[in-house]
Formats: sequence, structure tokens, C-alpha cells
Amino acid sequence: MSDAAAETKTFHGGPGSGPKIAEPTHEPEPSQTRTPAEEARTLVEGSKAGALASLSDDGTPWSSVVTFGATAAGEPVLVVSSMAEHGRNLAREAKASISIAEPVEDGADPLDRARITLAGHVVVPEGAEADAALEAHAKHFPFARSYAKYDDFTIYVLKVDRVRWVGGFARMASVEAEDYAAATPDPTGPGAAYARRHLNEDHADSLLLWARTFGGYADAAVATCESIDRYGVDLKVTTPRGDAPVRVGFLEPVTEPGGLRGATVALAKAARER
Amino acid sequence: MSDAAAETKTFHGGPGSGPKIAEPTHEPEPSQTRTPAEEARTLVEGSKAGALASLSDDGTPWSSVVTFGATAAGEPVLVVSSMAEHGRNLAREAKASISIAEPVEDGADPLDRARITLAGHVVVPEGAEADAALEAHAKHFPFARSYAKYDDFTIYVLKVDRVRWVGGFARMASVEAEDYAAATPDPTGPGAAYARRHLNEDHADSLLLWARTFGGYADAAVATCESIDRYGVDLKVTTPRGDAPVRVGFLEPVTEPGGLRGATVALAKAARER
Repeated sequence: MSDAAAETKTFHGGPGSGPKIAEPTHEPEPSQTRTPAEEARTLVEGSKAGALASLSDDGTPWSSVVTFGATAAGEPVLVVSSMAEHGRNLAREAKASISIAEPVEDGADPLDRARITLAGHVVVPEGAEADAALEAHAKHFPFARSYAKYDDFTIYVLKVDRVRWVGGFARMASVEAEDYAAATPDPTGPGAAYARRHLNEDHADSLLLWARTFGGYADAAVATCESIDRYGVDLKVTTPRGDAPVRVGFLEPVTEPGGLRGATVALAKAARER
Repeated sequence: MSDAAAETKTFHGGPGSGPKIAEPTHEPEPSQTRTPAEEARTLVEGSKAGALASLSDDGTPWSSVVTFGATAAGEPVLVVSSMAEHGRNLAREAKASISIAEPVEDGADPLDRARITLAGHVVVPEGAEADAALEAHAKHFPFARSYAKYDDFTIYVLKVDRVRWVGGFARMASVEAEDYAAATPDPTGPGAAYARRHLNEDHADSLLLWARTFGGYADAAVATCESIDRYGVDLKVTTPRGDAPVRVGFLEPVTEPGGLRGATVALAKAARER
């Protein structure tokens, strides 16, 4: 982590190079955010395709599109053919990595989104581990149960030795393999996009109240939800003094996929009772 | 190409494994399609982000998200920082590759889209070549003109030694470096999505006439445009005997970005005069 902190500190410019941000009017409530390991696990759990880097026989690192499913420990499972160059590469050299990126919206800067590299080595699972690995892949690609039986296909599990997470411009961290394995994907990940739209469309009044009470911006005029996760919401507030990003935490972390509704209702109630 | 042909021939199953396709009722007009080299150039020209495979100091191929612009010869230009692992990797080892994939629509199979690997080695351009390379990158990322001046940033041009193109399931080819360099991107690429929608929404009658006359399906009941390019259209036709993919070529290849309208109008006129 010290390496990551040092990079952030000296990253192309430093203080003063960004846009002006309005200061809070009072102390915001403390809030929790996802750890880099949790960000990484969440991105992997919510993805089913990435780019594999394998080593070609002429020594060139070979980049190719692969599909995957993740094991319970967040290890990507590939089902690849030896007819493809990356399949032959993995059979010859186990060292490999996979990068995964959040989908980019039309017109957005591809470097403004979250992405991750999982680096390590592939193994061919056997017995019960092979069955579990195939099921992990097949949850996204059911036909894999059929074509995994072809002679030219091999199931590989990427054993993750190290992880590099980039959350966007100048937001990044290295993650230890054990921290990655121990972290859990955000259970609210699949429902987050819907919840964000719903809050912005139907509960702008609640968002504004959260920004004014818990968020530390008493003079917030508008607040929109930029993202939502198991621990809280990221708001963008507009004040007469300028805009600012605001984090507001839930009263309790959400532990179940359907828990965002209860958490936002509880937060709205607490804000009204302030 | 012989390698690619052999792969296609023996690819997981062969004849009989796909869905039943209705045969033409009469001989279709000959039509031209983009070569794999043209497909590759078009995909690169229409993209600005991909996955780089570089070689980490522990020998692990390192996959990471990169942005790029393409030179006039279709060589990706990267502007990367030595603070990033891939920047340090390229400074130490020039062998590298980039994979680029068409965006995947929600719910679609990521392996059903076109993707490409450009493999070769990076060079640091100098003088006029450096200026041209930076401009190629900056056409997508104007801020690169500023940050390319930071000490930690380097401009790299990927010299393409070999190309692997995959057009979707079981549609693939290796492309020689000279063929890749000599091919041109499809000038109609940027307007193709709009033209396809417009044809389907407002000119279904023309599409059906093309399928019946030039396409070889006299009993076509419905025809929809699946894709459009400089050489013609790919239709999906429905007949009482089943569905079929149909290719209908334009009278002349389109050579300019705005040329699709004229080509489709000319084709419609020729079809009515049959």
C-alpha cells in the first residue's frame, strides 16, 4: 500500500491541478468506502469478459479477449481451445494475467473508469475442483458445459498472485493476494445501477437532505447520486460556492443483494429526525 | 491464410452442428466483402481503447487497459507513464501486443463480436514521426498534448508484425503485416450504425426487394439489415422455408464517409429496374 500511496501523491501534478471544489460548511459524518480488495472482487464478480495476457512462443506477450466466470475465491475460470493462440500459450507457459474494465459509456474517457489486472499463473483443476470451476464459468456461459468436453478445450483457473486496481484517474492501489481472496464482492453490485437511477428520479429530496445533514453541505442546492454501494452513496452536490463530491454512509453496511432499499429508507428516516 | 482455413474447417464440430438455413431459390449476384485486413483496419480506426499485453519483470505477461490512436498505417500510438507497470514494462521489453474488441451489447455473448490482436514491438518515435504519432493519439485524447510533456510519459508506436482477426464464432484469419498496412479502414464505419437503423426503420421494402432480386431469395417475406459496409449489406431474410443470411453488394464500393446514401439509392433503383 505504501507504493500505491506514493504514486498517488506524485501523480502528474499534485495539489492545485484539479478543478476548484467547495469546502463543507460543517463536519460530515464519518463514512466507510469499499476497500481496493472489495472493489476488485466486485468488478470481477460483475464481469464475464476481459483481456488475457499470455506468452506466445516467440516471446511476445499476447493479448486476447477471453470470457470467464469467477470461483468463490475470485479466481477467473477460462475454458479455452488449443486451436486459439492463447490456448496454446497457456498450455506452454502458466504465467498469465487478465485485465477487466468497467463498461465505458459512449463518449466517456476509457481511463476514467475502474479496471483491474489479476496476475498469477493458470492451473488445470482436477476432480471436484474441475467441476466447481466449470460451473463457475457456466453460470455466465451455459454452453461451456458442452464444449468443455471437446478434446481441444481445457479449463484453466487463474491463481491470483497479485492484483492492481485502478478506480479511475489517480485512484489506484496494489492489493495483496490474500486480501483479494479474503474480500467479498459487493452484494449490491447487480442492483446498484437501478438504485442510482431510482434515487435520482424519485428521491432527489432525500439526496439533498442527506447532503445537508450527514454530508456536511448545509447550503447544498442540488444533490445527485453518482454511485451507490453496500456502504453508502457518492453524491455530487451543487452549492452557491461551487460543486463538491460528498460521501454519505448508510447506518449499517448492506449485506444482501436486496438490501439497498431498506438502507436508503433508514437513512432518509434518520435524516428527517435530525 | 492456410492456417486460418484449417482452423475454421476443424472448429469444434463442423457441418451439421449449426441451425438449419434455407437455401436460395436462384443464384444470388456475386458480392464483395471486406477482407480480414480491412476488417482489422476498420476496427482499429473505430476504437480508442484496448488491452495491452506487456512483459513484467517477473516474466508474467501483464494485461492492462490502454488508450490509443492509430497512425495512417494503422499502428496504435500509446502515451503511457512510467508510474504505471505497463509503462515500465515497455521501457524494458519492446515486445507487446494489443487486443481490441467491438463493444458488446447488453446480454450479448462477448465471443460473438469482432476482436483483433495486433502483435509486434513498440518503438519511441522521434522528430516528425513523434509529432505525427502524438497527433494520432490526440485526435481521441486532446489532453495528451499536455501530459505527453511530463517527464514520466513516453509516446510509443506499436510496430505491427502480425495480426489475428476474429470476426465472431468460427470466423477468423491471420493477417500478414504488409496486408494490414496496405489495407484501408472502411470509410463508412462511423456512419454504419445509423445507416443500418435508417434502412430497417424506413426502407424495409427496399431491403426485401434486394433480397428477392440480387440476394437469391425470391420467396423472402421479411428482410432486415444486420450490418452495412463499403461493399454492401448483410441481410437476414425470413422465408416460408426458414431464415437465411444474405449478402447483397453495392453496384460500386463506397469510397467516402458520406457515400452510403448514394450507394443504397442506386441499389434500390437497380432493383426496381430488374
